[in-house]
Amino acid sequence: MEVTVLRLGHRISRDKRMTTHLGLTARAFGAHKMIIEGEHDSHLSESIGAVVGAWGGGFRIEYTDGWRKTLKDFDGVKVHLTMYGLELNKKIGEIRGLERDVLVVVGGQKVPSEMYGLVDYNISVGTQPHSEVAALAVFLDRLFDGREFDKKFHGGKLIVPQERGKKIV
Amino acid sequence: MEVTVLRLGHRISRDKRMTTHLGLTARAFGAHKMIIEGEHDSHLSESIGAVVGAWGGGFRIEYTDGWRKTLKDFDGVKVHLTMYGLELNKKIGEIRGLERDVLVVVGGQKVPSEMYGLVDYNISVGTQPHSEVAALAVFLDRLFDGREFDKKFHGGKLIVPQERGKKIV
Repeated sequence: MEVTVLRLGHRISRDKRMTTHLGLTARAFGAHKMIIEGEHDSHLSESIGAVVGAWGGGFRIEYTDGWRKTLKDFDGVKVHLTMYGLELNKKIGEIRGLERDVLVVVGGQKVPSEMYGLVDYNISVGTQPHSEVAALAVFLDRLFDGREFDKKFHGGKLIVPQERGKKIV
Repeated sequence: MEVTVLRLGHRISRDKRMTTHLGLTARAFGAHKMIIEGEHDSHLSESIGAVVGAWGGGFRIEYTDGWRKTLKDFDGVKVHLTMYGLELNKKIGEIRGLERDVLVVVGGQKVPSEMYGLVDYNISVGTQPHSEVAALAVFLDRLFDGREFDKKFHGGKLIVPQERGKKIV
């Protein structure tokens, strides 16, 4: 199962750190790539590229000019994370059980209402307002059932978990 | 069990959105309050206050001038989230089993190395770089074992989960 994250409505001035955190979270929690819709952000691509270079694995950033086409062309299950959707706890088993590639759509400021009809699932990670980074992390953690932390990132630095202090090999 | 989040090194210019997302994530995932160390940010307090006003519950923001004193005065388990710590999957059962109040320390840019020795647990939510928002969300989700989504926020709007579209009562 490969996971792609689609980030909608990226604006450099407002979102540069938030979308960077989304990309790093996508990578760390087992996604293969993030597709950005909105402004082309070379600084963001570079800073995520630098993390991939240092920490390994094959995660990559792509851009799209049309999210409708990205959705249409995707061969797999399309999941839109929204506080208005069906509850994660009730639906994650069903989604996992499909054993297909997953496209996770994460909104920006305003998600077009059309989106709700074009995906297979609208899923809420809690029905309270919080953060797209939190929603993505918890969704992927449940999707991979905690096993995303065992994923190997080839060619990168490796942390050896410590009770106190830091150890990198 | 009450959970407090301690956010270190807040700087308005750099962190305003990230710390807002941390606060909203803390609230949505069941924490009672967030204590901010760093710059006093009235805009942040207001925007989180507005969410509490609209969506209910008693979450609040406080400030501290000294994180050492906040740690020292806290009566409960102190957990520092860091990619260098012991693995979440291996330790969360033990932490939950203590059945005590929890202080979750979330770093800013540079966490003083002293911190690692002053807490009860250094815990890694994955050993890859990602986001303090993601780390906090997944830690709290595991701590409350997914039941944080059943929490009632009294006096606020309520979302009724929908397959398509939005429903608020």
